[in-house]
Amino acid sequence: MTLRQPAGFGAPLDLSLSPYARLRPVAVSSVRLDGAFWGDRCERNRTVSLTGQWEQLDESGVLDNFRRVTGESDAPHRGYVFADTDLYKWIEAAAWVLCQESDPALERLVDQGLTLIERAQQPDGYLHTYYVRDRAQERFTNLRDSHELYSAGHLIQAAVAHRRATGSTRLLDVARRFADLLCQVFGPAESGRRAGIDGHAEVEMALVELYRATGERRYLEQARYFIEARGHGLLTEGIFGREYSQDHLPIRERQAMAGHAVRALYDCCGVADLFLETGDEGLLRTLSSLFDRMVARQTYVTGGLGARHEGEALGKDFELPNARAYTETCAAVGSIMWSHRMLAATGQAKYAELIEKTLYNALLPGWSLDGREYFYVNPLQDDGGHRRRPWYKCACCPPNIARTLASLPGYLYGTAGDDLYVHQYVQGSARAVLSGRPVEVVQRTRYPWEGRVELEVRGEGDFALFLRIPAWCASRPVLTVNGLAVEVPPVPGSYAEVRRTWKSGDRVELAMEMPVRVLESHPQVLENAGRVALARGPLIYCVEGADHSAADLLGLGIDPRRPPQAAWDADAFGGAVVLRGEAELRDPDPSWEGILYRSAAGPSRSPGRLIPLMAIPYFAFANRSAGQMQVWLRRLDA
Amino acid sequence: MTLRQPAGFGAPLDLSLSPYARLRPVAVSSVRLDGAFWGDRCERNRTVSLTGQWEQLDESGVLDNFRRVTGESDAPHRGYVFADTDLYKWIEAAAWVLCQESDPALERLVDQGLTLIERAQQPDGYLHTYYVRDRAQERFTNLRDSHELYSAGHLIQAAVAHRRATGSTRLLDVARRFADLLCQVFGPAESGRRAGIDGHAEVEMALVELYRATGERRYLEQARYFIEARGHGLLTEGIFGREYSQDHLPIRERQAMAGHAVRALYDCCGVADLFLETGDEGLLRTLSSLFDRMVARQTYVTGGLGARHEGEALGKDFELPNARAYTETCAAVGSIMWSHRMLAATGQAKYAELIEKTLYNALLPGWSLDGREYFYVNPLQDDGGHRRRPWYKCACCPPNIARTLASLPGYLYGTAGDDLYVHQYVQGSARAVLSGRPVEVVQRTRYPWEGRVELEVRGEGDFALFLRIPAWCASRPVLTVNGLAVEVPPVPGSYAEVRRTWKSGDRVELAMEMPVRVLESHPQVLENAGRVALARGPLIYCVEGADHSAADLLGLGIDPRRPPQAAWDADAFGGAVVLRGEAELRDPDPSWEGILYRSAAGPSRSPGRLIPLMAIPYFAFANRSAGQMQVWLRRLDA
Repeated sequence: MTLRQPAGFGAPLDLSLSPYARLRPVAVSSVRLDGAFWGDRCERNRTVSLTGQWEQLDESGVLDNFRRVTGESDAPHRGYVFADTDLYKWIEAAAWVLCQESDPALERLVDQGLTLIERAQQPDGYLHTYYVRDRAQERFTNLRDSHELYSAGHLIQAAVAHRRATGSTRLLDVARRFADLLCQVFGPAESGRRAGIDGHAEVEMALVELYRATGERRYLEQARYFIEARGHGLLTEGIFGREYSQDHLPIRERQAMAGHAVRALYDCCGVADLFLETGDEGLLRTLSSLFDRMVARQTYVTGGLGARHEGEALGKDFELPNARAYTETCAAVGSIMWSHRMLAATGQAKYAELIEKTLYNALLPGWSLDGREYFYVNPLQDDGGHRRRPWYKCACCPPNIARTLASLPGYLYGTAGDDLYVHQYVQGSARAVLSGRPVEVVQRTRYPWEGRVELEVRGEGDFALFLRIPAWCASRPVLTVNGLAVEVPPVPGSYAEVRRTWKSGDRVELAMEMPVRVLESHPQVLENAGRVALARGPLIYCVEGADHSAADLLGLGIDPRRPPQAAWDADAFGGAVVLRGEAELRDPDPSWEGILYRSAAGPSRSPGRLIPLMAIPYFAFANRSAGQMQVWLRRLDA
Repeated sequence: MTLRQPAGFGAPLDLSLSPYARLRPVAVSSVRLDGAFWGDRCERNRTVSLTGQWEQLDESGVLDNFRRVTGESDAPHRGYVFADTDLYKWIEAAAWVLCQESDPALERLVDQGLTLIERAQQPDGYLHTYYVRDRAQERFTNLRDSHELYSAGHLIQAAVAHRRATGSTRLLDVARRFADLLCQVFGPAESGRRAGIDGHAEVEMALVELYRATGERRYLEQARYFIEARGHGLLTEGIFGREYSQDHLPIRERQAMAGHAVRALYDCCGVADLFLETGDEGLLRTLSSLFDRMVARQTYVTGGLGARHEGEALGKDFELPNARAYTETCAAVGSIMWSHRMLAATGQAKYAELIEKTLYNALLPGWSLDGREYFYVNPLQDDGGHRRRPWYKCACCPPNIARTLASLPGYLYGTAGDDLYVHQYVQGSARAVLSGRPVEVVQRTRYPWEGRVELEVRGEGDFALFLRIPAWCASRPVLTVNGLAVEVPPVPGSYAEVRRTWKSGDRVELAMEMPVRVLESHPQVLENAGRVALARGPLIYCVEGADHSAADLLGLGIDPRRPPQAAWDADAFGGAVVLRGEAELRDPDPSWEGILYRSAAGPSRSPGRLIPLMAIPYFAFANRSAGQMQVWLRRLDA
């Protein structure tokens, strides 16, 4: 077997040899997080979430399902048909952790998982704990719903991660056998193989990564086959229509993201991966226009995606209900993975921008501050009934959060030739070989709470640092090198280039102002008419019942001309910037009591009274006592 | 067998002997519709819809499913497990038609249907075309989903209607055998029978009607058992939770309508029927408060019910999205049936009011103007993609519309002792025995297009006419008897009593003003913030693309202080009152191009230009070329 990288090299997207990558991610193993916002969280992911999730895998039957295949367990299969992937995603998460540090206890659990998986594999390479034994004849008979290739995809991703993290090929060997089986079974009709795609995209991006990890081109070809086969109605139509699985139109003909949000996003990940290897410009054009339209018409202010509970689907243009927002946490993961690939393909800052927004406001809300509980659905308005849970019957989200956090270092930096891109501001450091010499860049920052970032270059050479200037910056930030302002002031929404002959100890400072921003939304978003949201830096804020005695936060109004002020609160959520100001509270209007519709000539409302307002980062909601939560607040100047 | 009514007596709710009915519906057979708005429509229901639906029953496999039971057909069962009820509802509709007039062709079709049903019944009375032959062992094993008792309910309703309409007991004999089986099988544990309820309420109201039709008290007791057994978790929980089938709380403990809208409404019908026979005040109190809360928080301005596609469910308080409104046509039917029972139980005008609103604006939109096509879902905003269809895979709605229209005469009048209530204004006449003498009341009106109603009393006696004064009347209407105004001016939202010694030829005139009304909705309905709807009389209006060249009706704005004016348009939809006026059209704002969120301090919109506005009755939308449709319009004074 050809293995292209040394052990220890790892990134959830390895583009080191991809010919059409403009940027190549700096590997997880080359990035260090140093406490602060993300370092602490990733540590909690390791010590609390991964441990707890293993227990849930055990209790929910996922591990027993594997034991059942070999007869070690007599328990019936438990959970959904895709429950195997909970273990695969967990192993992937653990592998990224092990890529960064030694954790013998975690390694032992991974080994247990690997043993279960190895034993459950069938002689021909097939691996799925549901479609075996008495259900073996049903293998590959219902690709729309069976998630067999989807499961293969997660197995492959876990295997690639494990190989990159540890150097071991144990899981990769398993994954290759299953991948080889898929290559034998599925393919274009003229090849004598069976036509087929999975109802849930996933195997496509995994196969491209398997190609990258092994150099075996047939995995890339197989991914290409699956990608191009989707959209021709190979799947039988279900109650949510062909869109649900993106089988309504071939990728090249699609004009909008549609159907099941996670499926649609995973599909685009595979397509982007295919572009990165093949340079097929038609694919990139389609992806670019799908992305732009999604951001301009289907994306919540949090970065969340998926407006509909039914079919867990993206909505139509401007269909963005708040209380009924679906915004599945897995869709945030899918969005980050897709943006990461688009960023690599184009080098455009807008993709890193959406990653940032999504990380803070769509992924993070899915995870309780103590690391023990998860949201599947992330509404932007709630009456207090929506609470995180330690696990779900459909438990896709918890290990998806875990693997994203564990691989977060791989999303922060990129290289283009001799230049280094800083996509995200996270305290820590990155190592890369630039102009032939090893260089380390150390970041010191209290981001996202403060807008000041200090970068210290350790090493020497002629190269450029590209610093992303977030589009949320209302004014041009100040960028200095060793205390001197750079010539061209940085432009929000782009990368600022600092090219020079670096000496060790050179310091770059980026100072971004972080005023509280008051946002309005496109007039076609009907639920937000006359409403505004509060943001500061990359964070979206919300108001929550725990901070207000008002009975009805829905009617809380703020004046955009007098926004609340940011203040550091060491007691809030282990330290956070909260927003404090004034809001207008309207007591329930008795003239509406028991009435739903009335003449528009009816009594107009009297103004309310001012009360203290407190807004907290949206990601922190529902971590205290249950109560109302609201992102969009009534605007008083409307 | 005891049969309590003579043949030819018929009403979808026969309360002639119900001890707790304050009002008793005047039978279908005693009411005549005389052309005009409803007469013409009911005739179209008979001549076009019922004929077309029979063809659909044949083509969709419903009839073959019955033939399959006896071996007359080898086709596999087609359609959903509840497809039998399409035939039952169709027969019920046909029976109400035959109650009103002779139609030999229709009679022949009914006879064909009856023969199929009779032959499909099992020796022990069981009747369900899916759970027979190879699936006979599955009988009664999955009451949550199987719709077996639900099907029994529709069979019973059809049988009662057929018996009342024709005097024949053919179908009633079949229905009683199945009902007897249910009585044997299901009951409280202490009776040695099996605990069970159907996932979809329906059999409860049917069993009460069977009791009324036969005098057999055990059917009433069986209905009581099913009603009281719901809400104790007898059904296994599905993906939409126990609420879906109202199995989350016993009826007496419920505080809000919840779950699947049609199920919830049908459930309340059965409970109201139980009250009407037993006088259980606790049940009536619960129903009254559920109804009031539903009207005040969960009902669309059209009367439509059901805010959610997922689970076809009622939403939370004030959750009333427009484009994603579900408002299933069957929910309108369920609402009308429930209100009809509440009206009988209480004599309160608000129930007749909701029936009127629902008939015109939630039932009627479900039916194309030519009588050939149907909506299942009735949104209040659409981009033009939502079109009626001749049939559905889940075809509950078309025959439900048909049976409601066919039995419409039974919803119009009621008696209380010697007094006659006029609930709805429909040209035609009603016959009743008042103060011991036969009396006929003839209505002449162009309602809902005009607010003038003339009633002529034919016959003599001492009694009162109670005329409903709709709550939509903004001013007190003028009520005269033989040209002289009554002493007490009528109050909108109540019944006006005209008690006197009547002489044949006495004329009562009710003159209601019908200004165009501009409605706003409760501030907690977020999608309607800053929006108004147009209404006139009982009708809700909408704007449609076919009448406007504007690209975006969503942004169309009107000034509530200068509403459009009503005008009779003989060419519109075979004659209709349309509304004409001015609206502000804003061209797409280029400053929002490609942007979804921005600083609230951004450029404010420039005013648009005035264009001619035309609004049409909401029920008529989507009968011309496909285009945008909008009920709630931007208000310019907000």
